[in-house]
Amino acid sequence: MSLEESGHLSIEQFFIALALILIFSKIFGELAERIKQPSVLGELVAGVILGGSVLAVVPSVSGMAGYDTFHLLAEVGVAILLFEIGLETDLRDLIKVGLASTIVAIVGVVVPFALGFASIIAFEKYGLLGGIDPSLNMLIAITVGATLTATSVGITARVLSDMNRLQSGEAKIILGAAVIDDILGLIILGVVTGLIEASASGDGAGISTLNVGIIFVKAFGFLIVAIVVGNLISKKLFNLVEMMKVRGVLLLSALSFAFIFAFLASLVGLAPIVGAFAAGLVLANTHQFKSIERNLKPVSDFFTPIFFIMVGAAVDVSVFNPFVSKNIPILLIALILFIVAVIGKFVSGFAVFKKGISKSVVGVGMIPRGEVGLIFAQVGLTYGIFTSELFSAITVMVMLTTFVAPPLLKIMFAKSKDAAQESS
Amino acid sequence: MSLEESGHLSIEQFFIALALILIFSKIFGELAERIKQPSVLGELVAGVILGGSVLAVVPSVSGMAGYDTFHLLAEVGVAILLFEIGLETDLRDLIKVGLASTIVAIVGVVVPFALGFASIIAFEKYGLLGGIDPSLNMLIAITVGATLTATSVGITARVLSDMNRLQSGEAKIILGAAVIDDILGLIILGVVTGLIEASASGDGAGISTLNVGIIFVKAFGFLIVAIVVGNLISKKLFNLVEMMKVRGVLLLSALSFAFIFAFLASLVGLAPIVGAFAAGLVLANTHQFKSIERNLKPVSDFFTPIFFIMVGAAVDVSVFNPFVSKNIPILLIALILFIVAVIGKFVSGFAVFKKGISKSVVGVGMIPRGEVGLIFAQVGLTYGIFTSELFSAITVMVMLTTFVAPPLLKIMFAKSKDAAQESS
Repeated sequence: MSLEESGHLSIEQFFIALALILIFSKIFGELAERIKQPSVLGELVAGVILGGSVLAVVPSVSGMAGYDTFHLLAEVGVAILLFEIGLETDLRDLIKVGLASTIVAIVGVVVPFALGFASIIAFEKYGLLGGIDPSLNMLIAITVGATLTATSVGITARVLSDMNRLQSGEAKIILGAAVIDDILGLIILGVVTGLIEASASGDGAGISTLNVGIIFVKAFGFLIVAIVVGNLISKKLFNLVEMMKVRGVLLLSALSFAFIFAFLASLVGLAPIVGAFAAGLVLANTHQFKSIERNLKPVSDFFTPIFFIMVGAAVDVSVFNPFVSKNIPILLIALILFIVAVIGKFVSGFAVFKKGISKSVVGVGMIPRGEVGLIFAQVGLTYGIFTSELFSAITVMVMLTTFVAPPLLKIMFAKSKDAAQESS
Repeated sequence: MSLEESGHLSIEQFFIALALILIFSKIFGELAERIKQPSVLGELVAGVILGGSVLAVVPSVSGMAGYDTFHLLAEVGVAILLFEIGLETDLRDLIKVGLASTIVAIVGVVVPFALGFASIIAFEKYGLLGGIDPSLNMLIAITVGATLTATSVGITARVLSDMNRLQSGEAKIILGAAVIDDILGLIILGVVTGLIEASASGDGAGISTLNVGIIFVKAFGFLIVAIVVGNLISKKLFNLVEMMKVRGVLLLSALSFAFIFAFLASLVGLAPIVGAFAAGLVLANTHQFKSIERNLKPVSDFFTPIFFIMVGAAVDVSVFNPFVSKNIPILLIALILFIVAVIGKFVSGFAVFKKGISKSVVGVGMIPRGEVGLIFAQVGLTYGIFTSELFSAITVMVMLTTFVAPPLLKIMFAKSKDAAQESS
C-alpha cells in the first residue's frame, strides 16, 4: 500500500536494498575471513558488487533515488563504529602517546603533500595531464597534495577491532594521529578552498593567518571543551538515566550523547566521527559503560556494514578496464599517486620513537584515504580544478589505498608479533 | 566537512534530529509511565512536539528536507517491531483463534464502513460539508467509510508488548484480526480506487469481481506460501548461518529475512509489517530464536521510537485551535467521525464468543487507525475526492483514535483482570 512519488526510493526498494546490503556484507565478510583477510575487505568488495557500476542495487552516486538516505545511514554507521571504539579506549592511554600521535600525523601530512605536489608538477612536465589551463598548474598540484594528506580512520579502526588489537600501543597512536589528522585536514581544506576562491576572484582575500588560526582554535577548542565538560557531566547524567525505567533508555541516551557530539563536531567543521569518538572516550569513564557496550553491539552490527558497503559502492569499476584507451593515462596517474600515497603515509610510522611499537603497523594503519580523500577530490571537481580524468585517477588512488590497507595491516601485525616473540 | 547540496538534509541536521528523537521519546515515554500510561503514548506526544507544527525538528510533511529518510526509517522501525512481536507469537495459537480473528476483522470492517457512510450522507443533508460537487456524494461517503475500516496494529502491539500481555488470548485475536484486516483493507482500497477511476473516466472498467478476486488470492497466497516455504527452509538456513563466524551474522541474517518478507508483502500490495510479522512467526520455530530475540532488542529500541515519533509528527496542532472559525466545522466532523470510528471497532470485540476473553480489550485494541488510516485519507485527497477541510477532519479522527487507544487499552486490561479475579 505504498504511495511513493516517482524518483523517490519506495518502501519495497528500501527493504530489499537493506536486505541485500546485510546479506552481501556478511557473506563476503565470511569469505574474507576464510581466506585469512579482515572481514571489512569482504564488505568493501560486496559494496563494489552492489554499487552503481555493477548490480546497481545500492545508490552510489549523489542524485540517485535513495542516495541521500543511504549516505546518511552510512555516516551514522561509521559514527557508531568510532563511538564504540572510543568506549573501548582509555583517554589516559591516548594522552600518553599524544606526542607520538602528533608527530605521526604531521609527518603523514607533510610527506604525502610534498610527494603529491611534486608528482603533479612532474606529470605536467611530461605532458601526462594534457589540455589543462596552465594558470591552474599550482592550484592543481596543491589540491592533489591536499587530497593525499587525508586519513580515513574507519577502515583501520575496524581492522584493529576485528583483530582484537584495539588495546595495542600501535592502535592508540593511530587513533590519536587520526584525530589530529582530521584537524590538520580541516585547516588544509580551509587553505585550499581559500586559495581557489582567491584565484577565481583575482584577489588574495580568501585566506589569512587569522582565518587559519580561527579554524585551528575552533577544532581544538571543541575537542578540549567536549572532553572536559563531557567528563564533568557524564557521570551525573548517566546516574540520572539509570533511574529511568522506560525500555532501552540507557542505550538510547548513550547514542544521543554520541549523536550530539557528532553534531557539534560537524558544526566546528570536524568530521562527525571525531565527535562520536570523543563521546566514546567520555562515556568510557561512566559506571554504565559495560552495559552500554553490550547493548550497542547489535546496533553497530546493523549500521557499520552500510558504511563499508557505501565506500565500496562508490568504486566505478569501468575505469579499471585497460582496453578502453582513455583509461590508460588515468590508470597510470592513479598508480603513481597510489605509490606516492602509500609511501607518504608509511614513512609517518617511522617518526615513532617508542619501544615495542611496530613502525610498519602504524605506517600502514595511516594509509587508507577512504571517504575523507573522496571529500577532498570532490572539492577539486566542484571548483573546476580537476578534469574528470584527474578526478577519476584520484578516486582510483583513494580506493586502492582503502582496499590495500586491511590485508597489509594483518600481515604487518603478524610480522611484528613474530619479531616481538623472537626478541623475548 | 560536509558538502551537502541545499534542500538536502545535512549530516549535522540528521545527527541532531536523531538525537532529539531518541531523547524526547525516552523522556516523554518515562513521563507517561510515571502517570501510569503506556510509554508509546509519551512517544506520540513527543512526536507532536518535534513535528512540523510545533518545533519542526522532525520533517513531518512529504517534500521537506529529510522527510523521505525519516519516513523510510519509520517504516523499518514498525517492521522491526512487528518482526519482534512475530518472534514472540506461536503460529499454532494464532491458528487456534483464527475464526475469532476473522469474525472480529469482518465486523470491524463492515460496521465502521456503514457508520462512516451514513455519517457522510447525514453531514450532506445538514449542509455540513458545504460547497462540494453533488456528483461526488456517493464516492465521498464510500471513501470515508473505507478510511474508517483501517486498523493500525503497531500501536496496540506496542502497548501489549510494554504491558507483557502478548501471550494473552486477547493479543492473539487482535494480531490475527489485524493481519486479516490488512488483507480486507487491500481489497477495499482496490475497489475504492477502481470506483474513483471509473467515475473519472466515465465507464465501469475500474473494478470487476475478477480484479477483487486477484487481489484477495495474491494477498492470501503470499501469506500461506511465505509461512509454509519459510518454515520449510528456515531451520536449515539458520543452521547454516550458525556455522558462519563473522561478527553479527545471526542478527543480520534474521533482519534480512524479515526485510525480504516485508519486501515480498509490499510486492503483493500488503503492508510491509504484515510480511515482517510473518517472518517473525516463521523464525519463532528455529533453534536460534532466543538468541535472535536478544540481539534484536537494542536494534528495535533504536528504530521503533522513530515510527511513533513520525506518527505524532504528522499531527497539525493548528487544526485544534477552536478560535479559528474555519476549524469549527472540521472539529465537529472530526468528533462525530471519531465517535463513529470508536464505536465501529469497539463492537467488533463483541463478536468474540470465547470463554475468558475480554471483549472490550479486543474491541479497544482494534481502534487505532494510525498510518493505515492516513494512507486511505491520502488517496481521497490525491484523487480530489476530499476537500482539504474533510481531509483535515479525517486526519484529526485518525489521530484521536491513535492517541485514545493506549490509555483505554490499559484501563480495559486492568478491568478484565479484576473481573477474572472476582469470578475465580
